[in-house]
Amino acid sequence: MKTMFLATLFAAILTSGVALAQANPPAVAEDFKPSVLNQPGQEYPQVNSQGYARFRIEAPQADSVRVSLGLGGRGGTRLTKSADGFFTGTTAGPMDEGFHYYHLTVDGGKFNDPGTLNYYGSTRWESGIEIPAHDQDFYALKDVPHGHVQQVLFPSRSTNTSRRAFVYTPPGYEKNTKTKYPVLYLQHGWGEDETAWSNQGRANLIMDNMIAEGKVKPFIIVMNYGMTNVIKPGAPGGLRSFKIEPFQTVLVDELIPYIDANFRTLANPSNRAMAGLSMGGFETHAITLNKPGVFGYYGLMSGGVYTPEEIKDRSKVKLIFLSSGSKENPDRVRKAATDLKAAGFHAVSYVSEGTAHEFQTWRRSLRELAPLLFRN
Amino acid sequence: MKTMFLATLFAAILTSGVALAQANPPAVAEDFKPSVLNQPGQEYPQVNSQGYARFRIEAPQADSVRVSLGLGGRGGTRLTKSADGFFTGTTAGPMDEGFHYYHLTVDGGKFNDPGTLNYYGSTRWESGIEIPAHDQDFYALKDVPHGHVQQVLFPSRSTNTSRRAFVYTPPGYEKNTKTKYPVLYLQHGWGEDETAWSNQGRANLIMDNMIAEGKVKPFIIVMNYGMTNVIKPGAPGGLRSFKIEPFQTVLVDELIPYIDANFRTLANPSNRAMAGLSMGGFETHAITLNKPGVFGYYGLMSGGVYTPEEIKDRSKVKLIFLSSGSKENPDRVRKAATDLKAAGFHAVSYVSEGTAHEFQTWRRSLRELAPLLFRN
Repeated sequence: MKTMFLATLFAAILTSGVALAQANPPAVAEDFKPSVLNQPGQEYPQVNSQGYARFRIEAPQADSVRVSLGLGGRGGTRLTKSADGFFTGTTAGPMDEGFHYYHLTVDGGKFNDPGTLNYYGSTRWESGIEIPAHDQDFYALKDVPHGHVQQVLFPSRSTNTSRRAFVYTPPGYEKNTKTKYPVLYLQHGWGEDETAWSNQGRANLIMDNMIAEGKVKPFIIVMNYGMTNVIKPGAPGGLRSFKIEPFQTVLVDELIPYIDANFRTLANPSNRAMAGLSMGGFETHAITLNKPGVFGYYGLMSGGVYTPEEIKDRSKVKLIFLSSGSKENPDRVRKAATDLKAAGFHAVSYVSEGTAHEFQTWRRSLRELAPLLFRN
Repeated sequence: MKTMFLATLFAAILTSGVALAQANPPAVAEDFKPSVLNQPGQEYPQVNSQGYARFRIEAPQADSVRVSLGLGGRGGTRLTKSADGFFTGTTAGPMDEGFHYYHLTVDGGKFNDPGTLNYYGSTRWESGIEIPAHDQDFYALKDVPHGHVQQVLFPSRSTNTSRRAFVYTPPGYEKNTKTKYPVLYLQHGWGEDETAWSNQGRANLIMDNMIAEGKVKPFIIVMNYGMTNVIKPGAPGGLRSFKIEPFQTVLVDELIPYIDANFRTLANPSNRAMAGLSMGGFETHAITLNKPGVFGYYGLMSGGVYTPEEIKDRSKVKLIFLSSGSKENPDRVRKAATDLKAAGFHAVSYVSEGTAHEFQTWRRSLRELAPLLFRN
């Protein structure tokens, strides 16, 4: 499992989020607009209709400012200083659609772009930029009834603290006081935390929109921090010592009972799903196999596959969902789903076209997974 | 009102959060520890037992790194570069207890400290540092039942969008399904937003702790964004054109009905309070006077005073709470409370000792206000 995860992580690092430059690239369209993830009133960074990103950073006495995104030298975009003290520059090519993390290197030091909001990834709060996607409507903020996202602090005896999680309750949850709901436990990836699925992933808006369209049966989503040890920044080796048991104890023995006691849940395996992206997929894989009676629906998003042989008690498994970006290794999830179906499982694979090991793949994966849940 | 607010803002800018240097300062104690607001695994910034802060920033090719906090030249602390590429430095004096915003200036550009979490203030996400306070127990995360803080997106016809607010529900809210609760509408200050009271203010932990001790009757807190226009960073002049009516419409005509429809509230003026800090206090003052039938309890924290004459319908007012840091103008709230009491109002003043126009004043103000609410 560790080897598979590290291989996926490498793939993510190698696919920089920027498409390959073409032999004769088209002219850069001068229709740049502020990224929707900018801080209030900030004009930069900007994005154009082709997916190019343009940056502008004030640092009058600096010698060098580099952005970690783009095709430029040494894995980023080197900005050029103007007489007004601002460094500016545009990526050498269009970026993949969707959300990207990045940071600046200013005279050798790593800082965030003061123009953007920050998102927790790579074990630090990073700058974020959003490249408008052709299908962005499904995660847009619309004039529909909205669910709530609540921060809960649940007691954890095993780690001797109150731990934070976020809970999405669907529109109507407060008014339909007799209704009980199924629950999806949805995990982030390595270096991220329990804020990722609503901040970067827009899981709440995806659900609000699909519920408004009648495509999804309303359910609760619980987003929890997937590690119990503090990862030192810049030390992915922390994964080598990662053990599933401490997190499994927090999730299964502490969080699920808290959620079932404090929310109106249908507290049984037929109404409980677990899914996760990347590392969260590997966690889902391990915990669903270790604890076959807890969850009825399994989802791995860019996070490995199941083989028919490793599932001991197949009567408990109502759905296996496997997804990947087309720029990852999509044939692996397709083949795994085919093998699972041949062995009699209800298995579905999904490949996100034109995306890599990034959040656009996982937003789409949630959109594909949600309608399949809690149907039988 | 505008003049008063701007005067308070100036006072806040002039009191830098660092106590005056003494003639013979004591030696700096070498017991520095990471600030509790650092990002996971980050060792710097650090704070010692006397309240000094120490910073360490990596920027190998930079010429100059300055921290906006401290007594050093030009309103901050200038860091010194070492051969290892890190800039380090310690504030020239102890800082006031509690939370402080700050940022770095790296070769003339304004960036956040990559070691800390960010907090929205001054119309931007800024670095935050926490100086341990002698009374920090009241806002500590403890092993007590915890309320939830939920993000709601409520429809706003007047601004034609879904607006975000945060709602604190007390411990037991989900289980006590027959109980209805009073509501405090609690506003942030200028340049902050609806995240401030739970992130910087720890309003949820203050409530959890006081409820656990039986000092406070459980109530709901609603934290809403107090402006309807986007403030351009660095342009406090935006306040000159600030009008209360658009925000008043959002609060009174849109948010309150949403809260009353979606939460189990006691929907009447005897069970509805409004309070705010700084600009949020001036908003509270204006809206409670404009709409005398909506709120029964008024709280201004470092945000002006009421005079007996300006309150038209005194039968509606159950409590007036006025507070200030001792480093602001504490006599003003004391005198105003005395005048209000002489005129027959139930008025209470509170002065936070040793603090300025900063969040420690307002955390303590909430601690003092909460037990007085919804008592009659």
